Amino acid sequence: MSVQAPYYAVIFSSKHSSETDGYEQMATRMVELAKAQPGFLGIESARGEDGRGITVSYWESLKAIQDWKEHGFHRTAQSLGKSKWYETFQVRICRVEREYGSDTRNGVDP
Amino acid sequence: MSVQAPYYAVIFSSKHSSETDGYEQMATRMVELAKAQPGFLGIESARGEDGRGITVSYWESLKAIQDWKEHGFHRTAQSLGKSKWYETFQVRICRVEREYGSDTRNGVDP
Repeated sequence: MSVQAPYYAVIFSSKHSSETDGYEQMATRMVELAKAQPGFLGIESARGEDGRGITVSYWESLKAIQDWKEHGFHRTAQSLGKSKWYETFQVRICRVEREYGSDTRNGVDP
Repeated sequence: MSVQAPYYAVIFSSKHSSETDGYEQMATRMVELAKAQPGFLGIESARGEDGRGITVSYWESLKAIQDWKEHGFHRTAQSLGKSKWYETFQVRICRVEREYGSDTRNGVDP
């Protein structure tokens, strides 16, 4: 699937705490659920050895982002993340204005 | 330093090739130069063991992003990145609409 800008991105930046119990299982489940949401376009993630990570998910609209934020199981995950897995985190809601790169289709490919 | 939205973000997603010679030195220099550019607000980066990385830089304006893209030494780095260090890469220019998180200042902190 390939989508042309404009579309939307959620940049989630975090630093893990020393508590990792249950995290991987929850993260895998969250990606599965996000992919099943209406308006989901793609997701990419990277985490270094220092525990700092960036996940960017891509969406068709602000409405799709809001719906995913309010998803019941996602809310549980957010709550656990805040209290347990993340030392710090920041969420940025963005409008993707344009893009370019080695992927000549210039779109989101989940 | 703390900045309120709206501001701009450049999401740079890449997959490293097997060629790493000179990369770390260039990446360090690029961050130093970016920080000295007018309109620079912050930068964050993560790369996993699979070679996939995400770097997000934050800027006051689209003009600041364009000026940095056209910076002479940065152009050299971009060219080397394409031909040598990156198997694939994608650049997305975004407008940050809003943010929230554990950083109660809700701003960019370089």
